Amino acid sequence: MTFELGGVPIPSRLVLGTGGAANLTVLEEAIRASGTGLVTVALRRVDTTGGAAGGLLDLIDRCGVRLLPNTAGCYTAGEAVKVAQLAREAFETDWVKLEVIGDERTLLPDGVELLRAAEELVADGFTVLPYTSDDPILARRLADVGCAAVMPAGAPIGSGLGVSNPHHIRLIRQSVEVPVILDAGIGTASDAALAMELGCDAVLLASAVTRAADPVAMATAMRYAVESGRLAYRAGRIPRRFHALASTPDDGRPEL
Amino acid sequence: MTFELGGVPIPSRLVLGTGGAANLTVLEEAIRASGTGLVTVALRRVDTTGGAAGGLLDLIDRCGVRLLPNTAGCYTAGEAVKVAQLAREAFETDWVKLEVIGDERTLLPDGVELLRAAEELVADGFTVLPYTSDDPILARRLADVGCAAVMPAGAPIGSGLGVSNPHHIRLIRQSVEVPVILDAGIGTASDAALAMELGCDAVLLASAVTRAADPVAMATAMRYAVESGRLAYRAGRIPRRFHALASTPDDGRPEL
Amino acid sequence: MTFELGGVPIPSRLVLGTGGAANLTVLEEAIRASGTGLVTVALRRVDTTGGAAGGLLDLIDRCGVRLLPNTAGCYTAGEAVKVAQLAREAFETDWVKLEVIGDERTLLPDGVELLRAAEELVADGFTVLPYTSDDPILARRLADVGCAAVMPAGAPIGSGLGVSNPHHIRLIRQSVEVPVILDAGIGTASDAALAMELGCDAVLLASAVTRAADPVAMATAMRYAVESGRLAYRAGRIPRRFHALASTPDDGRPEL
Amino acid sequence: MTFELGGVPIPSRLVLGTGGAANLTVLEEAIRASGTGLVTVALRRVDTTGGAAGGLLDLIDRCGVRLLPNTAGCYTAGEAVKVAQLAREAFETDWVKLEVIGDERTLLPDGVELLRAAEELVADGFTVLPYTSDDPILARRLADVGCAAVMPAGAPIGSGLGVSNPHHIRLIRQSVEVPVILDAGIGTASDAALAMELGCDAVLLASAVTRAADPVAMATAMRYAVESGRLAYRAGRIPRRFHALASTPDDGRPEL
Repeated sequence: MTFELGGVPIPSRLVLGTGGAANLTVLEEAIRASGTGLVTVALRRVDTTGGAAGGLLDLIDRCGVRLLPNTAGCYTAGEAVKVAQLAREAFETDWVKLEVIGDERTLLPDGVELLRAAEELVADGFTVLPYTSDDPILARRLADVGCAAVMPAGAPIGSGLGVSNPHHIRLIRQSVEVPVILDAGIGTASDAALAMELGCDAVLLASAVTRAADPVAMATAMRYAVESGRLAYRAGRIPRRFHALASTPDDGRPEL
Repeated sequence: MTFELGGVPIPSRLVLGTGGAANLTVLEEAIRASGTGLVTVALRRVDTTGGAAGGLLDLIDRCGVRLLPNTAGCYTAGEAVKVAQLAREAFETDWVKLEVIGDERTLLPDGVELLRAAEELVADGFTVLPYTSDDPILARRLADVGCAAVMPAGAPIGSGLGVSNPHHIRLIRQSVEVPVILDAGIGTASDAALAMELGCDAVLLASAVTRAADPVAMATAMRYAVESGRLAYRAGRIPRRFHALASTPDDGRPEL
Repeated sequence: MTFELGGVPIPSRLVLGTGGAANLTVLEEAIRASGTGLVTVALRRVDTTGGAAGGLLDLIDRCGVRLLPNTAGCYTAGEAVKVAQLAREAFETDWVKLEVIGDERTLLPDGVELLRAAEELVADGFTVLPYTSDDPILARRLADVGCAAVMPAGAPIGSGLGVSNPHHIRLIRQSVEVPVILDAGIGTASDAALAMELGCDAVLLASAVTRAADPVAMATAMRYAVESGRLAYRAGRIPRRFHALASTPDDGRPEL
Repeated sequence: MTFELGGVPIPSRLVLGTGGAANLTVLEEAIRASGTGLVTVALRRVDTTGGAAGGLLDLIDRCGVRLLPNTAGCYTAGEAVKVAQLAREAFETDWVKLEVIGDERTLLPDGVELLRAAEELVADGFTVLPYTSDDPILARRLADVGCAAVMPAGAPIGSGLGVSNPHHIRLIRQSVEVPVILDAGIGTASDAALAMELGCDAVLLASAVTRAADPVAMATAMRYAVESGRLAYRAGRIPRRFHALASTPDDGRPEL
């Protein structure tokens, strides 16, 4: 289930966030159970000097997964660019999950600031993976300025509402060439499967796993869900019909 | 992912129908890919004298899965009871997937005839697994007369519409003690995952796999979908929220 | 917006239940605001000797609407038949809204008992209007035994969930010739409009109006909703499209 | 059903577009049947010199409704500003429905250009009514720069898909003080009622009426739908319940 992101093969189509985990032990188990190859971390959640929170970096290292710094908590392009640059130094990666939040209550992205920050970071050599709204026009503009993927929200972060607007996700899939990663909103396995069936290349989620009653079981569920959705997308599903279509035709019925 | 049906452990929560398969080779590959342990076959689809169609029985035998005869194509209780009895002799099993169809166009079950046939077959020693509508009251009555499970339709056979009424499936799950197997209507992986998340014990499908463009890939998708849905159901999903919940709280943000 | 029921023209496609009203004054205002021509009343809610509860009959009389007795609270065919017969005497009408409930928690109908009661009452000369599940096969059987309409539940009584399974309502509309009246489940105006757009001939509701914060305003809302849904159904809606269709084509754009 | 827009009372919560009408006679009948008080027209659809197309202006005048020029077909802020200015001269109104389209296939708005044009037009003294996406953050930014309302798309223009993301419409309603007018996507009456129930102050639609098989009947349907949705929104609907709530409690049931 490899896919390519910024020219790099990523071994799983499930990307995990680390926020919301009860502790590092559970998080490590969940990361391993999920089969993920890419984990996103907010700069401020990490003590890069090796203190307690620094344990998160060791953990990621130990799990052999790639680190994707994010700019969670930034509300302007300027802030996000600065956090991205700090993260580049701290983590020695020019990949960034770009978040520029528009509103505390919804945590939905601010498209105008996001596009501005994306342009600046692309120009500065970053591999930019923007967390965006599900607006197909904004997604195309982000791709046009050189983002390596677009990451539309299914629904607000932590809401567990799933994919609120499947139609927009399909439109985004049609309007860009870069990978589409459904980011935010996933609540349960069928949401993740659906996102993949809509044509997404991957799914990013955090709370759905970290805040589940049993994070490790949910991580496994999400692993299978993403694989099943991708397989189903490629397997060519049957069309929807208003009436039935007998799976067993009447020919050869025994006389009674 | 074992579950128990009629006192027997079944090694997978995915039950497959055989109708609609292009040929036996593809069907065998799909059965193996699905990981199923229980396969349903219409009596009339099988030449029990060992002719061409008899190959289906050899195939099922070879795959090491349990055979579940069904009464597809019966429109009255009387017919269904006779077919069940013939099937018992032919296949040496007293298990029967009981279908009493009410209408050619929808292939939905006729509840009155179904209940009558179920009572008769239970009295005759069968392990009765009725294909029923998603009516919670009828489901409870079927359980009350001794059926070993209830198998509500998600949507008409072959329609690929998924689970049209999740609310009714939940109500059925609450109203009976026996296993609930979602039977009919599944179109793609997320439908199967959703059925399991609603509390179903298993999913039965045929066309979604046999008529997919790539049946083997879809069989694998369904295998993972059912597992993911079951795991998610048990893992305790996060609640749905109208607003966001930050996965990464603001504490410890670096000063910029 | 007249429609015909049991050979009688009914002046509105909105049928009202009386249960749940705070008092008779509000109920009267709501009945008048709704424009209904048919009101259903449980036998036991009426003191036919002219006591306090008897005020309900006076009210209905005063409003000039037709009374439709119902058999609410009956759990067997026998009970329902008896209540129907008592109601015929008490109210001097052979119309009956036939309810045979299967379960206290869902108040969904028991199809087997319902069909039995319907047959008996039709034979006894009643105009039978059965409250049924949304099972298309059962609906057709009820029509086949001579019911004057079928009244499928959109969702459980008082649940406000709307039309849980629009597909089944469409299938019912296709499978019977008699009027289809969506009965139970309506929560708000758009639910009633949708029911009419699915092809229903009328909508019956009680709690949505009687338990609304402002019953009279909601009664008016429902009156308009039912009319709008019926008009839209007949007006021939535009097809759904995946992409846009410009309402204003580009021809004749001014040069800038 | 008056509401206020830019300080002016508008006598109906249904706003009509004129695109897609077969001819002016039908359009006039539809406008009258709809009860609308505000009609939007693309500058380029009007021959302001009094030629054939100029008939549209006479018609609007004759119907006594207010004219709202729009900038349909503009793809940049610059273009839209110029068209708005031309329209101001031609129609002697500083009201403008601001459209800046991002994509021919979806006709969805380009948020970045839209915001730019809105700022410029507000500064130039226009009453700006922007057609926007259903992005709550963008809607708030449009309100913040002084737009007199926000007009989120329910779905792409002419798609008839209704309100694809009710959650976003609710979030928009919470995030701005100015009127919210659902614009684009409406297919049928229940869509319009739902939009109003989500808290919208008005609904704007064109194709749903002009391209319906019977535009005049559909215009009437929409008139009632908008009224019913608004009334229901204010009447305080019953809560949704998983189980039933008897409208007729068991007290006082007759002994049988």
